[in-house]
Amino acid sequence: MRLRLDLAYDGTDFAGWGIQPNLRTVQGVVEDALATILRLSQPARLVVAGRTDAGVHASGQVAHIDLPTLASFENPDGSLDLQEFENRLAGILKRDPDVVLKRASIALDGFDARFSPLARRYEYRLQDDARTYNPLERHRSVWTPKPLDVDLMNAAAESFLGLRDFGAFCRPRPGATTIRELQQFEWRREPDGVVVCHIQADAFCHSMVRSLVGACVVAGNGKAQQSELDEVRDGAQRTALFKVMPPHGLNLVEIIYPADDELGPRAELTRSRRDLLDDEAIA
Amino acid sequence: MRLRLDLAYDGTDFAGWGIQPNLRTVQGVVEDALATILRLSQPARLVVAGRTDAGVHASGQVAHIDLPTLASFENPDGSLDLQEFENRLAGILKRDPDVVLKRASIALDGFDARFSPLARRYEYRLQDDARTYNPLERHRSVWTPKPLDVDLMNAAAESFLGLRDFGAFCRPRPGATTIRELQQFEWRREPDGVVVCHIQADAFCHSMVRSLVGACVVAGNGKAQQSELDEVRDGAQRTALFKVMPPHGLNLVEIIYPADDELGPRAELTRSRRDLLDDEAIA
Repeated sequence: MRLRLDLAYDGTDFAGWGIQPNLRTVQGVVEDALATILRLSQPARLVVAGRTDAGVHASGQVAHIDLPTLASFENPDGSLDLQEFENRLAGILKRDPDVVLKRASIALDGFDARFSPLARRYEYRLQDDARTYNPLERHRSVWTPKPLDVDLMNAAAESFLGLRDFGAFCRPRPGATTIRELQQFEWRREPDGVVVCHIQADAFCHSMVRSLVGACVVAGNGKAQQSELDEVRDGAQRTALFKVMPPHGLNLVEIIYPADDELGPRAELTRSRRDLLDDEAIA
Repeated sequence: MRLRLDLAYDGTDFAGWGIQPNLRTVQGVVEDALATILRLSQPARLVVAGRTDAGVHASGQVAHIDLPTLASFENPDGSLDLQEFENRLAGILKRDPDVVLKRASIALDGFDARFSPLARRYEYRLQDDARTYNPLERHRSVWTPKPLDVDLMNAAAESFLGLRDFGAFCRPRPGATTIRELQQFEWRREPDGVVVCHIQADAFCHSMVRSLVGACVVAGNGKAQQSELDEVRDGAQRTALFKVMPPHGLNLVEIIYPADDELGPRAELTRSRRDLLDDEAIA
């Protein structure tokens, strides 16, 4: 039996998604909670859609887990009491926690949290104006001391769109491709002054979002010309022109899955192109 | 010379606005920073519009401070270099701080941060739905485990509007009146699921906002009937029907001042009715 779990977390106090010895990770906390309520002798392994790095947040993370049985949550008629399962898991994670189960459901036929997605969507938040600076935003937005021109940032963002080699924006890994399709990348200034981007790709390689944001920041504060960014992009080599931005401005917003009857075929297709999915890729 | 300071802070790590020995307070931190950049031998005292309790946030706090001189920030022509003053103060408070100076300005004639306001406006934020629960909101919104009916909350809120004795919602203090004018009190559910109120009064007595929110919560989750709330309101006595809600959902949004030429007269009027302004009143 495969369960789909929809999760949200504040990444501040986690060493990222993936399990690491002696560190508090999202995967570790959720797997321990599952082992407790399901009375498993060893943790069942979660498979996640978007591995997130230390400090990165998620409001729309998705994972799946394969379990031999959910017997302790069976109704007398043999159906599953998912509400009770949700309540127990939420109870273990405690009220008002930094990781929360939004929903538990039986996975549809062919569903694979990692291989079925069509795309991942993130947002990144910046504050650049002391007069509108909101201290309550500081755990989820990054302060940039120079004012940002959102039009220039959008011009840079648009120049990165499409199917291309993002080698200039990815931490290199032998044998893994850095070709991705960047489907959406737009900046706007919200009424409260926060500068936010929405960015979507079929998949991201390690540090890709935060590098692309860094490139837009140097475009927006005037430290780099668009022609310089074009050159770096086309060279597909790492550069010192911009920085990988800090993790706490980044939030995984949504995992986009195909229609129900395409979940299986899509997972098959992705598995057959494993070079596209860097095993260690984390945002 | 009187300066007006517009401030914002995350109340999480402060023991409230007002100075207390051996505790980190907003007033203490800002006064220390001012003493440093102005090289004062003893701290100049800030006068604040809305005293906030431990854990309460402010995005629109206002204070004033009387200083003998700002000589070290005078331009050659005798005018003040307020930009340099702002930069130095922001520098002392450090980048990305939990308290930030949004603006420093010369106070207009007759301006008094505490006595000139026409009204104070707060917001309070609640989350009641595990499926939309956002862990990034948990420092500024309060989790209520029972679902809230916003229509019922608005009916309760409306029943509290007007000029009346808020004795049922105020921590009593001998010699201080609990009569206030509640001018606005409205709830709405935002697109992300957070339930937010805007509440405005000429002034609030101690714990008044958080008690009124508590009353709306028991209306919204069905634990109290409107008729019970009416009775408590009219009795003007403290009750166990609802709780004083936690501080971290509360944010001081705006201090509303009158037109420039009414700042002085308004301050005079308020001073003549000191019974309306409990010296120890904190939100």
